Amino acid sequence: MGEVVRGPLPKVPGFTGAAVSAGIKEGKKGRPDLALVLSQRECHWAGVFTRNKVKAAPVLVDMERMRDYRQVRAVILNSGNANACTGHRGLLDAEEMCGLAAFALDLTPEAFLVCSTGVIGEPMPMERIRKEVPQLAQSLSSTGLTGVAQAIMTTDTRPKSAWIELETSGEKAILAGIAKGAGMIGPDMGPHATMLSLILTDLTLPKEVMQDLLNRAVDHSFNRIMVDGDTSTNDTVLFLANGLAGGLPLESSIGDLEEPLKALTLDLALQIVEDGEGVTKVVKIEVKGAATSEEAEAIARTVGTSPLVKTAFYGEDPNWGRIMAAAGRSGATLEAGKCDIWVDNVLLVENGEGKGKEQEAKAAQVMKKTGFQVTIDLKLGSGEYWLYTTDLSTDYVHINADYRS
Amino acid sequence: MGEVVRGPLPKVPGFTGAAVSAGIKEGKKGRPDLALVLSQRECHWAGVFTRNKVKAAPVLVDMERMRDYRQVRAVILNSGNANACTGHRGLLDAEEMCGLAAFALDLTPEAFLVCSTGVIGEPMPMERIRKEVPQLAQSLSSTGLTGVAQAIMTTDTRPKSAWIELETSGEKAILAGIAKGAGMIGPDMGPHATMLSLILTDLTLPKEVMQDLLNRAVDHSFNRIMVDGDTSTNDTVLFLANGLAGGLPLESSIGDLEEPLKALTLDLALQIVEDGEGVTKVVKIEVKGAATSEEAEAIARTVGTSPLVKTAFYGEDPNWGRIMAAAGRSGATLEAGKCDIWVDNVLLVENGEGKGKEQEAKAAQVMKKTGFQVTIDLKLGSGEYWLYTTDLSTDYVHINADYRS
Repeated sequence: MGEVVRGPLPKVPGFTGAAVSAGIKEGKKGRPDLALVLSQRECHWAGVFTRNKVKAAPVLVDMERMRDYRQVRAVILNSGNANACTGHRGLLDAEEMCGLAAFALDLTPEAFLVCSTGVIGEPMPMERIRKEVPQLAQSLSSTGLTGVAQAIMTTDTRPKSAWIELETSGEKAILAGIAKGAGMIGPDMGPHATMLSLILTDLTLPKEVMQDLLNRAVDHSFNRIMVDGDTSTNDTVLFLANGLAGGLPLESSIGDLEEPLKALTLDLALQIVEDGEGVTKVVKIEVKGAATSEEAEAIARTVGTSPLVKTAFYGEDPNWGRIMAAAGRSGATLEAGKCDIWVDNVLLVENGEGKGKEQEAKAAQVMKKTGFQVTIDLKLGSGEYWLYTTDLSTDYVHINADYRS
Repeated sequence: MGEVVRGPLPKVPGFTGAAVSAGIKEGKKGRPDLALVLSQRECHWAGVFTRNKVKAAPVLVDMERMRDYRQVRAVILNSGNANACTGHRGLLDAEEMCGLAAFALDLTPEAFLVCSTGVIGEPMPMERIRKEVPQLAQSLSSTGLTGVAQAIMTTDTRPKSAWIELETSGEKAILAGIAKGAGMIGPDMGPHATMLSLILTDLTLPKEVMQDLLNRAVDHSFNRIMVDGDTSTNDTVLFLANGLAGGLPLESSIGDLEEPLKALTLDLALQIVEDGEGVTKVVKIEVKGAATSEEAEAIARTVGTSPLVKTAFYGEDPNWGRIMAAAGRSGATLEAGKCDIWVDNVLLVENGEGKGKEQEAKAAQVMKKTGFQVTIDLKLGSGEYWLYTTDLSTDYVHINADYRS
């Protein structure tokens, strides 16, 4: 398996991309906000979607495609407007976005998937989209995927992309992904995504296998990051394979794709969390020794969303009492008198009691870094879980108090 | 039923109080931090405690008293140190606090309850407490309860107390309470408390009835407020009745106490939430039309703890999409196309869709107030729930990033 390369995407055989500025969000004319990704051949595909019961129109459209269509050709994406809580009109608008692109490219609307991100509850400015789609379709190029990564940004400060080169039966292939994140990041449990990401490959993959691979990868990447614990109405991960690089002929070789896909999606997930709203620190929370892995996950999620823990990270304060208190309210089995807590390799708490001022001073030193690990060892069983969370800064509050104004 | 009066307590027959400054928190010498409340007669009593699995030593001591002792005489309280995550030594220290006060007053240690609040994980500075308890015991006076309310403050900016005059069989009696709150406010579900509060009365009440009354009152007051959703290791509500005012002879009259106790505890709960860390707004979240009241509660709690919703409150932004998204991830049954959302009497969302810019402008006007109500009507069933939450401000982050430094 090759290394994950973070940065602008190289060409992905058979895929083209384009982005334009349609001025979807009032007053944001000039920045790209409408994008298209096209495959020259039919793609097998898989997708995972938000489990929020309030699902945006494009999510509902894509889920319908998933039931009815084994193959797709393209994805139309926009930022600036989530097309969520927009009722029946929202569904018509999402379908029309597919239809407009299909018309411009002489394809059927059902060959298109659609992704939106941005403000909830405002109608899509369809007249602006109608005006720009023909231009968008004409701008498609094999170097255009970089622009797509830019066009789906909202409060992201930088585009997110990564790729990995694969070799299969002597042939080279590529696995490439783009993503956006920033706010409303709180993965729902189970194999369901929490942001926007598009994974492309020129491998030949059976559709059924793709869904299984994607579920597992998402469960080890996008579902293990949290900025604010809020799950979006629009979270979508799409995985398209156009088969231009030829096949992975044996079942066993398909299994070989699991690790590269996990590595790629984890890298994209980390890019999201590193660029989270107001984030100054990324913290890996590792829970071990829990009674079960489900209980380890419950503790990791409760600690990872606790405002008191996250503000202590921001303050570079090894306030382990807040970590203990959050673990204690998670519902998981726990004996306070057994817990150990580490910050990187500094033992802060042993058997439920603090190791003193000197260790706290060492931990405070570690916490000055932009990334560190908190390990909670319950010493009860073999349940383990890890995830990445962030600090909670005054900038997070500024960004979200002012988001629409 | 009399009116709840908010403010310094009048005399409560048979109860005395005192507070001193013991310098429990390093560098905070001068402010009162150690307090005592004594009844001249044995009291029947009830208590509710945090359900956090990490329970502070004083909570464990009081829970043991609850199993073994129907009557108590006094409570010793301190701020500056929570005596939590302090292991076996913490338990000895909590017992010694009772013992010191008992010795000074010539009582048995088992006649004492103990409450602590403050930093987690540091040993109690017992030498300072040993030094001050004799002085504390000598300072007890019938006007001293006001000082007790001050001594239990941590990041509270003001003491919290309220009282209500009762008339029973022509005799007058009083129900009085003090409380502290500010941070780590996130009530656990069920009849369990989330902060420190002490309720005193001179009524005669059977112990069994007291516990039931207190459970119900807490469930309608302290369990319905949230600042940050973090449940403390020390949350305690104690209810003491010394019987000096004579009896409530009939079962039916005991029922009459339910409403006054709910009103008193709700007033104290509101004082806590109004004085929450960095709070600029108190928002009542009312959910109705849910499939069940449990689902209504799930929605109210998810909306009430969502950082995106709370920062929007701070920004006075009627960003109802965030409310819909939070409701959608609560796990409750919900049809997006049926939901109505109101801000006070301004209809912001009808059947899942926004009512437009004009209504949003009106709602933004309402949100400039320091208190308002958000109503979410699911129009599915008759399940209802309400609670009080706050905004999330930059000051909350400042206070909690700097709490220990």
